[in-house]
Amino acid sequence: MNETRYISPETQFCELKQPVILESGQVLIGVQVAYRTWGKLNPERNNAVVICHALTGWADADQWWDPLFGPGKALDTEKDFIICSNVLGSCYGTTGPTSVNPETGCPYGPDFPRITIRDMVRVQAALLDELEVAKVKLVIGGSLGGMQVLEWGVMYPEKVEAIATFAASGRHSSWCIGLSEAQRQAIYADPYWRGGYYTIEQPPAAGLSAARMMAMCSYRSWASLEQKFGRNKGADGNWEIVNYLHHQGQKLVNRFDANSYITLTYAMDSHDVSRGIGDYDSVLASIQQPTLVVAIDSDVLYPPVEQEKLAQLIPNAQLGWLNSPHGHDAFLIDMEDLNAMVVNFRQSLDWNAANRDRSHLSRIWRVDN
Amino acid sequence: MNETRYISPETQFCELKQPVILESGQVLIGVQVAYRTWGKLNPERNNAVVICHALTGWADADQWWDPLFGPGKALDTEKDFIICSNVLGSCYGTTGPTSVNPETGCPYGPDFPRITIRDMVRVQAALLDELEVAKVKLVIGGSLGGMQVLEWGVMYPEKVEAIATFAASGRHSSWCIGLSEAQRQAIYADPYWRGGYYTIEQPPAAGLSAARMMAMCSYRSWASLEQKFGRNKGADGNWEIVNYLHHQGQKLVNRFDANSYITLTYAMDSHDVSRGIGDYDSVLASIQQPTLVVAIDSDVLYPPVEQEKLAQLIPNAQLGWLNSPHGHDAFLIDMEDLNAMVVNFRQSLDWNAANRDRSHLSRIWRVDN
Repeated sequence: MNETRYISPETQFCELKQPVILESGQVLIGVQVAYRTWGKLNPERNNAVVICHALTGWADADQWWDPLFGPGKALDTEKDFIICSNVLGSCYGTTGPTSVNPETGCPYGPDFPRITIRDMVRVQAALLDELEVAKVKLVIGGSLGGMQVLEWGVMYPEKVEAIATFAASGRHSSWCIGLSEAQRQAIYADPYWRGGYYTIEQPPAAGLSAARMMAMCSYRSWASLEQKFGRNKGADGNWEIVNYLHHQGQKLVNRFDANSYITLTYAMDSHDVSRGIGDYDSVLASIQQPTLVVAIDSDVLYPPVEQEKLAQLIPNAQLGWLNSPHGHDAFLIDMEDLNAMVVNFRQSLDWNAANRDRSHLSRIWRVDN
Repeated sequence: MNETRYISPETQFCELKQPVILESGQVLIGVQVAYRTWGKLNPERNNAVVICHALTGWADADQWWDPLFGPGKALDTEKDFIICSNVLGSCYGTTGPTSVNPETGCPYGPDFPRITIRDMVRVQAALLDELEVAKVKLVIGGSLGGMQVLEWGVMYPEKVEAIATFAASGRHSSWCIGLSEAQRQAIYADPYWRGGYYTIEQPPAAGLSAARMMAMCSYRSWASLEQKFGRNKGADGNWEIVNYLHHQGQKLVNRFDANSYITLTYAMDSHDVSRGIGDYDSVLASIQQPTLVVAIDSDVLYPPVEQEKLAQLIPNAQLGWLNSPHGHDAFLIDMEDLNAMVVNFRQSLDWNAANRDRSHLSRIWRVDN
């Protein structure tokens, strides 16, 4: 890591008073949560909107989701009290492998426990308790963020009024687990990995970079890369796509921790909203909140067939199609379209609240874009 | 490499009398070609069928394409003189990085020159000259094999009567180049890579295995892995998909050379039938042979849109759809269906030869399966 990981000066930090009991039974004490807020919590303390970020994201959601922020936008800075916290296990200020273990005085490193999506959500819920938020109007996020959104819906049915999940599944597929594992193995192949006990000066840069290159391909699509790079070569005689991937690999090495990458990909692989509590279909059927499921037609990681099934299984779900050539990452690229879908969804929620009639939501409808 | 790479006792070896002048201008002397033949060359010496194998394939095509072999099959062992040779740059008996460089007395290793698909085809053509084959009735192959097939069509219009390419493109896409590069970087990240100067006892096993895991995912599809493994765990508590990928990774380490993997993936990235000779559309339009293009509907590497364009650009092409959940590798899995398509194609060739009318071939038609 040659650069400091950027955390904006507006970032706030909360040390949770209670220990966090992980799903594994392990206990984390002194958990710190890095978070940002926008807008004001109303006197009723019921206008919170929770943003859940993706794998290598962080709390400064206005940086990576700017077009969704503003008056009248998906994230209404005038009406909402918007909160985004860095997830447990990450390396942007919330407790994770780079944090000091209060029991040993040393960074956790590879000894940071295996965590799950539910553990991430519990930490977010604990933060909201510290902020004395009574109700959450909406939980919203894509990819790993979307997995958290679904767990929010299942775990906190009384607290959460609506959820919006983009390019995510109710349980991680075999295909996604396989791609995660190949990426982890590339990191482990790096001699600087040292079983996770690497130094800040000598991280497993080559392995993490190779993992990121692999991941970047999976975040895009054949058509997207063909359109952007084709078989063009740069001034150095290399394929432009190769230079692009090296650039992306190096960027991630500069801003992300390999142990966090391992921790978070394992958490994604563990993702299954029904784990230990029932069969998959029934658990999704138990989600009562109005739900927006946004599927990306060119997503190779969470393909249309999986998104359609997800929307079918959640009783009050709307399925919106983000038609884009850009693949999985479209929720971070085609943001104007995404914003429009969320605005539309939120307007329908307001209309229903005013009319006390949710019957027209009890079926799937399409927000073709 | 803990196991000897299997080469059947029926394999024959031919040392080319002429030096091979590579597209790069470099010259290889004493090139050896490992090959298998089935059936007999007829007195007219015009019943040859050339099989081109995929990335990690080898000359024993009857082992990996058994359902296509036999009387009345796609590869008719009674009528055809079938030839399959290991490609230049591979490690199954044809000259490649593991071969001894006659100029130095040492294995080429990473100093083996960069080669192209055209170089592979030139070596195959030289073998056919040594065998005094006058005409080739059909060149057939999938993936890297399909790239060779297309180059055969462009490079030897007088010698080749028909071509059949499966799950391949006329030029390697940005997407495929990106996935190749990520795999190479995983190999380079391994400390045993040593710039390619590794020993037989200590190959870059972890890196090559990680590369293979990544590749295996790309050879299948979301649906294929979901159907086969889902979220099942093995007796060891690991995901079945993870165990499967580790098994596949180790298998490749046991049977393949990392420098060959690098050499052949670079060759695939170089693939463009129009390179240096014209624009892409015109070069494909110059292919006059009857052509069977088989597209796999679930192929993420060479997706339907690319296959359709390929078939549209080749004047005498038929487009056949291999509808399969298995992704790119379907040409090695759904072999009965593939066989039926090739048999059908060859019957149409025979019918046309008998009737001296190829007009009905001058359009694209679909062999839906």
